Amino acid sequence: MKYAIALAFILGLLNSAYAEVKTNVVEYKDGDTVLEGIVAWNSAAAGKTMPGVLVVHQWMGLTDYEKGRCKQLAELGYVAFALDIYGKGIRPTTPQDAGKQAGVYKNDRALYRRRLNLGLAQLRTHENVAKDQIAAIGYCFGGTGTIELARSGAELKGIVSFHGGLDSPTPTDGKNIKAKLLICHGADDPFVPAADIAAFQAEVNAAKVDWQMITYSGAVHSFTQPMAGNDNSRGAAYNEAADKRSWIAMQTFFNELFGPVKQK
Amino acid sequence: MKYAIALAFILGLLNSAYAEVKTNVVEYKDGDTVLEGIVAWNSAAAGKTMPGVLVVHQWMGLTDYEKGRCKQLAELGYVAFALDIYGKGIRPTTPQDAGKQAGVYKNDRALYRRRLNLGLAQLRTHENVAKDQIAAIGYCFGGTGTIELARSGAELKGIVSFHGGLDSPTPTDGKNIKAKLLICHGADDPFVPAADIAAFQAEVNAAKVDWQMITYSGAVHSFTQPMAGNDNSRGAAYNEAADKRSWIAMQTFFNELFGPVKQK
Repeated sequence: MKYAIALAFILGLLNSAYAEVKTNVVEYKDGDTVLEGIVAWNSAAAGKTMPGVLVVHQWMGLTDYEKGRCKQLAELGYVAFALDIYGKGIRPTTPQDAGKQAGVYKNDRALYRRRLNLGLAQLRTHENVAKDQIAAIGYCFGGTGTIELARSGAELKGIVSFHGGLDSPTPTDGKNIKAKLLICHGADDPFVPAADIAAFQAEVNAAKVDWQMITYSGAVHSFTQPMAGNDNSRGAAYNEAADKRSWIAMQTFFNELFGPVKQK
Repeated sequence: MKYAIALAFILGLLNSAYAEVKTNVVEYKDGDTVLEGIVAWNSAAAGKTMPGVLVVHQWMGLTDYEKGRCKQLAELGYVAFALDIYGKGIRPTTPQDAGKQAGVYKNDRALYRRRLNLGLAQLRTHENVAKDQIAAIGYCFGGTGTIELARSGAELKGIVSFHGGLDSPTPTDGKNIKAKLLICHGADDPFVPAADIAAFQAEVNAAKVDWQMITYSGAVHSFTQPMAGNDNSRGAAYNEAADKRSWIAMQTFFNELFGPVKQK
C-alpha cells in the first residue's frame, strides 16, 4: 500500500512536470453590469475534473494579488476563479475609494451576496470543475465575503477567511450555512473587534456550524498581503509567518474537504 | 529536485518498512521520589539523532493513552518520552483522586516545573535525541504543564497544549518563554474560562512570544481523549474531528520547527 502511494506520488510529479498553469480573463454579468474575473487551472486537467476554489478580493478589487493566489491554487491542483464584486474597470487606487466601494457592499449584503453567488456560478461553468467540490477563500473585505456567501446558503464544502470581518447585520443567517468554516485571524487585528468575534461565534454555534478559528500572534489586518507593508502600528501589515502558516492551514483544510487533489 | 524529493520519500518508506517502534519503561528520580516514564523511538534511528518530544500526561497520571501517543510520535520519526509528574505507582483511578493529585502541582508551580524539567532532562539523555531539537506536548493538566515548562525558561523549540489550562499565578513569567506555542482549544471548554484566555494572551503578547491558538467548534475539554466519552454536557468529551485536526496541526507545527523528520 505504501509503495502504491509512493508510486502515485511519483506519477503525480511526472504529470505536474508536463503540466502548465493557464489563466483566462472572464467577463460575466449582473444585469447590465459587466464583471471581469480571472480563472486559473492546470493544463494537466484536460478532460478531467477537480475541486474548484472561488477567490474573493480585498477592498481594492481584483488585483494581481488575487491572480497570483489563483495561480498558486492551480499549481496545487485546483481550478481557481477570482471573481469581481465591483464591476469591470472599477479598481480603486486609494484607501478612500476602496473604503467607499467596499462600503457599498458591506452596507447592502443582499447585493454583496448576489455578486458573490454570480462568481460562484461562473466558477461552476468551468469544464474542469467538480460541481459539488467547491470552496471559497477571501481576504479582508473578501474574507467577509466568503462568510456572506456561506450565510446566503450557497452549496460550498468550505470557506477560508483570511483576516476577514466577522460582523453580520442578520446573525440568524448562520442557520443557512452549509460550509465548514476556517477563520484565520490576526491576534492584533484592530479591524475585527472582540465583540464581532463573540457575536460571530454565537451565530455559528447556534446554527451548529463546523468552524475553526486560528489566531496568529503579532499579526494585524492584511497579514497575508505584502503590499500592506510592515508597520503593525498602522493596523494592517504583512506578517510572513502568519501568511505561510495560514496558507498551509488552508491546504490542510482542503485536504480534509476534498482529499488529496487528483485529476479524475 | 522534485525527483530527488520523491526518491527520498520512497527510501523513507523502505526504511520505515524495516523499522520498528520500541518502548522502554524508564525510572528516574526527584530526590528520593521515584518517577516512572515511558520512552518510545524507532529502531531505524540506531546511531542517528532525531527531534525529541516530551509528553505531559493528563490528571490521571501516565496511562496507556500517553504511551499510545508516544508510539504514534515514534512512528512519525520522533523520540517521545512520556514523563511522570506524580511518582511511580501514583495513578489516580477516580476524578476525585486525580483532582487532588493535579491540585498539588497546580498549587505549587515550582514543584510542577521541577518535575517537568526533570522529565525534559530525562528525554535529553536518550542517545537518539538531538539535544537542541525538542518540543513538548501535553493534555489537560499536562497542557498547562507544557506552558509551565516554557514559563520556567526551558530550552524548547515549541510546545503544543491540547485543551490545557492557561492560567498563571505569575503572569510575568511569560518573559522566560523561549518556545513557540501552539494552543489547541475547544470552543466550548468550560474549564478554560475566557478570562484565562485573555490573561494568557496578554502575558505572551507582553513577552512577544510567538504563539498560535486554534479554536475548534463543538469541542469541550478532553477532546482528544476517547476515554472521556461523548457527552459534551459533562464538560469533557471526545471529539473526533477536533482530535484529528489538532494532531495534524501539531505535525504541521513540528514540521515548521524541525523540518521534515529524517534520521541524521
